[in-house]
Amino acid sequence: MIDFEPSGVNRLIHSPIRLGIMTLLNSLEEVGFNYLKERLSVTDGNLSSHIEKLEKAEYIEVRKAFIDRKPHTSYHITEKGKKAFRGYIELLENIIKGGT
Amino acid sequence: MIDFEPSGVNRLIHSPIRLGIMTLLNSLEEVGFNYLKERLSVTDGNLSSHIEKLEKAEYIEVRKAFIDRKPHTSYHITEKGKKAFRGYIELLENIIKGGT
Repeated sequence: MIDFEPSGVNRLIHSPIRLGIMTLLNSLEEVGFNYLKERLSVTDGNLSSHIEKLEKAEYIEVRKAFIDRKPHTSYHITEKGKKAFRGYIELLENIIKGGT
Repeated sequence: MIDFEPSGVNRLIHSPIRLGIMTLLNSLEEVGFNYLKERLSVTDGNLSSHIEKLEKAEYIEVRKAFIDRKPHTSYHITEKGKKAFRGYIELLENIIKGGT
């Protein structure tokens, strides 16, 4: 029998665009804004608002640097974000077990 | 690299309570209203509205019968619902692949 509680779903991660951001940040060392934007096919405003929510939850962090004198912003998953994402993945695995 | 498009997420299934309903109906022959209500810890009104959405999408169907002269309502996944759920599960598997 599956072990699934709707209230146990981390809605901060579950929202499709944030899920995309977290999945990418979890598998890549660092990513830039434009990369996320293209990979996830979202507008600037939409992406910014989702990034802000994840940053506020301390799941991701923003780093600003100068590369070749040009400002460069990159996004990284935090330890807290990794842990939350692992928990979310476990939930998905439970659903799949119930669904196959 | 993961293959994940936020716009490809089936939002009819993705919503946590509907995801719970679909997961249960996909793994059980038939379930009753009270069983769903207890397993998913939701109110009558909330459950009804999610069931209605899934019924409207023809992902599930409602059967009414009399058992021991008592009215009995049960919910079942349809072929269309099974197909949609399989597609959703494939998406989860992609996320897990990217997340592990």
